[in-house]
Amino acid sequence: MAQDKKLVTAITPMDVDFAQWYTDIVKKAELCDYSSMKGCVILRPYAQAIWENIHNIFDGMIKESGHENVAMPLFIPESLLQKEKDHVEGFAPEVAWVTHGGSEKLEERLCVRPTSETLFCEHFSHIVHSYRDLPKLYNQWCSVVRWEKSTRPFLRTREFWWQEGHTVHETEAEARQETLQILDNYAELAEKYLCMPVIKGRKTDKEKFAGAMETYTIEAMMHDGKALQSGTSHYFGDGFAKAFDISFANREGGMSYAHETSWGISTRLIGGIIMTHGDDSGLVLPPAVAPIQVVIIPVASHKPGVLDKAREVAQTLKAAGIRVKVDDTDNSPGWKFAEYEMKGVPLRLEIGPRDIENNACVLVRRDNREKTVTSLDGLADSVKAMLDVFAKAIYDKAKANMDNNTIKATTLEEMKNNISEKPRFVKAMWCGDLACEEKIKEETGMPSRCMPFEQEHISDVCPVCGKPAKHMVVFGIAY
Amino acid sequence: MAQDKKLVTAITPMDVDFAQWYTDIVKKAELCDYSSMKGCVILRPYAQAIWENIHNIFDGMIKESGHENVAMPLFIPESLLQKEKDHVEGFAPEVAWVTHGGSEKLEERLCVRPTSETLFCEHFSHIVHSYRDLPKLYNQWCSVVRWEKSTRPFLRTREFWWQEGHTVHETEAEARQETLQILDNYAELAEKYLCMPVIKGRKTDKEKFAGAMETYTIEAMMHDGKALQSGTSHYFGDGFAKAFDISFANREGGMSYAHETSWGISTRLIGGIIMTHGDDSGLVLPPAVAPIQVVIIPVASHKPGVLDKAREVAQTLKAAGIRVKVDDTDNSPGWKFAEYEMKGVPLRLEIGPRDIENNACVLVRRDNREKTVTSLDGLADSVKAMLDVFAKAIYDKAKANMDNNTIKATTLEEMKNNISEKPRFVKAMWCGDLACEEKIKEETGMPSRCMPFEQEHISDVCPVCGKPAKHMVVFGIAY
Repeated sequence: MAQDKKLVTAITPMDVDFAQWYTDIVKKAELCDYSSMKGCVILRPYAQAIWENIHNIFDGMIKESGHENVAMPLFIPESLLQKEKDHVEGFAPEVAWVTHGGSEKLEERLCVRPTSETLFCEHFSHIVHSYRDLPKLYNQWCSVVRWEKSTRPFLRTREFWWQEGHTVHETEAEARQETLQILDNYAELAEKYLCMPVIKGRKTDKEKFAGAMETYTIEAMMHDGKALQSGTSHYFGDGFAKAFDISFANREGGMSYAHETSWGISTRLIGGIIMTHGDDSGLVLPPAVAPIQVVIIPVASHKPGVLDKAREVAQTLKAAGIRVKVDDTDNSPGWKFAEYEMKGVPLRLEIGPRDIENNACVLVRRDNREKTVTSLDGLADSVKAMLDVFAKAIYDKAKANMDNNTIKATTLEEMKNNISEKPRFVKAMWCGDLACEEKIKEETGMPSRCMPFEQEHISDVCPVCGKPAKHMVVFGIAY
Repeated sequence: MAQDKKLVTAITPMDVDFAQWYTDIVKKAELCDYSSMKGCVILRPYAQAIWENIHNIFDGMIKESGHENVAMPLFIPESLLQKEKDHVEGFAPEVAWVTHGGSEKLEERLCVRPTSETLFCEHFSHIVHSYRDLPKLYNQWCSVVRWEKSTRPFLRTREFWWQEGHTVHETEAEARQETLQILDNYAELAEKYLCMPVIKGRKTDKEKFAGAMETYTIEAMMHDGKALQSGTSHYFGDGFAKAFDISFANREGGMSYAHETSWGISTRLIGGIIMTHGDDSGLVLPPAVAPIQVVIIPVASHKPGVLDKAREVAQTLKAAGIRVKVDDTDNSPGWKFAEYEMKGVPLRLEIGPRDIENNACVLVRRDNREKTVTSLDGLADSVKAMLDVFAKAIYDKAKANMDNNTIKATTLEEMKNNISEKPRFVKAMWCGDLACEEKIKEETGMPSRCMPFEQEHISDVCPVCGKPAKHMVVFGIAY
């Protein structure tokens, strides 16, 4: 059969060439395609389904806490973008500009949104008049554009899909609380649903978002030891509010400026899933976001009753809320096994005449290929339990990878040596001076990832200048 | 109270100035805001929630019939747009052009997608090789841009949100069936969920989509007698397939070109809801898409037990899957009544100390303000039943408006006279010649809306040329 060729043209092993392994998976698992629009990707149905599952989980979380979705224009007039100085400096060099509408040259250039702080701020200035109007807890799901020079699917593309939350509050305390609450939501999404352990922390001033007072982040470690910034939450203070005049009549009868936050996660999380859980057979998907949680492969499906039983089992599982697919094509079982391993389906359910006789089926885990003969009685519960075990197992494996590749260092020399073989997270102290942070990056190639909330005392002094240390910082090479 | 002012500044009555009435509702019901991005709107939370409900209903329908969502790039290189002659002629005059990325001038201009046939076709040419790869039933939810000169919220804006389905099939028959099946889905969405009666039919060649062989449409009548094209489904034949080389190994061992369709509905449906059901007190929302289906207004809420009971009732309704909100603010009941009438909430539930004593509440319908004392026992069922009655009532009212304002004509004179007072649908025969269709538009101001599937025999001849008639056509002035 022609399609059996796929089995032969396996993907590049991850230890041979991790970048090529990644590219192979993106193609073979049918996640993305390219178009003549350079630097952008097409999300094929399988990737889009993963993204929709992420969307639904996170959208549910924020709606539960009172957030509302809106839709802002795609374009930002140049003059609007320029209203907040730090923000425009950060983004203007990498935006796409619309100069013509139809056959006419526009009076003012429009940038395609790289992020929408300016649009949200302008809108807030229209609708916020009194403390009674606060807070506004808004979010939008959309795509944004940043004119990157080198691109990789999910990790860095000129257009990517994300959610951007923008909130405006009466007090600094409320805005700070929002910033951290969302960071907790991000960590929950990553750890509980994507099975991806993360370090929560604050970015250094050098690494924070353009225009933010403080940026918080969740940082994950990929299989190769590199970091993936997986979600960020920004506290703006009243800087944007002053630039855009978002002021309101306060409780004391005076006027105050509002306090703002913004926060985002994007389709780069799919890149994170690939590089956290994948192996040489392809994707390994966390059950919570897997488009197919269980694939049913009928064995000897020409024998009477096998296909019917497979479909009956599928109905039972579907009714219990499990995402299930029966592959009843005439492809060989070997081809099917390889195909759904490539696609990272958590569980394979094999069922043939002998299984049916025994009122049983065989469940095979994607992560370790462990086979379990399972009764058809109470099957939905057995499957759910096994999906939970599976989720915990891939989380634990990722956590072990992070723990085993996180090292403490007290000197620049140690920092360098620790990453000579492969990228790792290096924990080191820091005095808080930009010059020392830059020196570390220059010498080791590692930017700071964050100042973790869980601080440890590694030494008393900064490894660069020897002055008293203020923070423990995690350094790492990042995607 | 400052907010009570809203009651005074009521909206313009629809019979005084329908356009101003529409604009007033869009603002007062907090559906849209403007930004410095001219010609575009912001969808505020209330409009976005309506759109998400429409999205979820239709997305469920098409997933049930095997369609899958994807995400295509926002940009189309100029050379790609130009691959299909009729298509580019239709769209090029109204697209926005990106000419610069960051500080660099691009080698080739990129248009911001006005629709994505070209991108889908290029992708199909990559992934369709054999009849075994067919059909591909794809859809995407996104926004598109058309550089309109005059704009109105929902009805015509430079950016709008929509879904665009694109499918590719082995045979003409399958593609034709898809085109019509989707039209049925659109009609079901409009009639069953939006309570908006529609005429299903085929567009004349003059009015069809750029590049399509046939365009099918659902046409609704607004309160003022004008038409709203509410959804279109296009059959492309193999024209795009030839332009983009979407060919495949067929069952006979040769090569064939694939047959395609595309179809879309957009946020203009929200404009349709406003103008179909709204009245001088504001919006009237179909229950299926209303963000709030029941608003609970506690009466004498300072009395002990009232607020608790109101919240208990809300919990009961919420548990039954009803979208409910308790307004426990200190605004006056009068203000609250006006506010939720403006927002078109289908049912108002009033509950006070005396009601509680009687184990009852009062339900008030938004459409006719009819009050019904209702037992708290089995309340969720009573509310659901009343929402169904409400939906049928507003559908029937809209249907009566369409029926009462649809007229048959056999001469140009009659056509003109029938719309001298107000816009109406005019049914007339047509010979099929473009010249006659153009003459009718010139003389009466009415373009053709469609050739309805339900044909009637009005006369034997075309009212313009007197030659034998081929079709009955509905003419009407459209938004």
